[in-house]
Amino acid sequence: MGDKVIRVAATSIPPRVAGAIAKTMREHRSAEVQAIGAGAVNQMLKAVILACHYVQPDKMQPFCVPSFIEVDVDGRPCTAVHLLVLAEAGE
Amino acid sequence: MGDKVIRVAATSIPPRVAGAIAKTMREHRSAEVQAIGAGAVNQMLKAVILACHYVQPDKMQPFCVPSFIEVDVDGRPCTAVHLLVLAEAGE
Repeated sequence: MGDKVIRVAATSIPPRVAGAIAKTMREHRSAEVQAIGAGAVNQMLKAVILACHYVQPDKMQPFCVPSFIEVDVDGRPCTAVHLLVLAEAGE
Repeated sequence: MGDKVIRVAATSIPPRVAGAIAKTMREHRSAEVQAIGAGAVNQMLKAVILACHYVQPDKMQPFCVPSFIEVDVDGRPCTAVHLLVLAEAGE
């Protein structure tokens, strides 16, 4: 698994984030994304759905394990939503 | 799988939705949730994370398969975010 977490903001563009997720999945068969706040969480989930489509030709059928994680934002503790995206071998 | 989709709104209370998801998972080992809009998607994902904790004593380790689905809202076509929550047998 890569140790690089893809951070998503409310202003992130889902297809672009999806491209980064798909690239990481092709390399590691997994990706980690995280977001803080409703707008960012929404963009993150959209990006993951798009990434699932992007990697279908690579015989991957991704699924997600969601969790909360504590992160530090400018010295303040914050709760982020984290998605571990894993690939199952497809048909 | 149950044919009842749990619909989440921006005003939904995550622990309450999580209770409904956990109940459905105990009965069917899967649950379906859907949401439209950033606020609702955020509440939905929070609820799923909580539900994952709720069902841990039942030896379930849930994971999600996210997708877009087309739904009809007051006669208008809308794109919703759908999560199929499935349980893997835990340790």
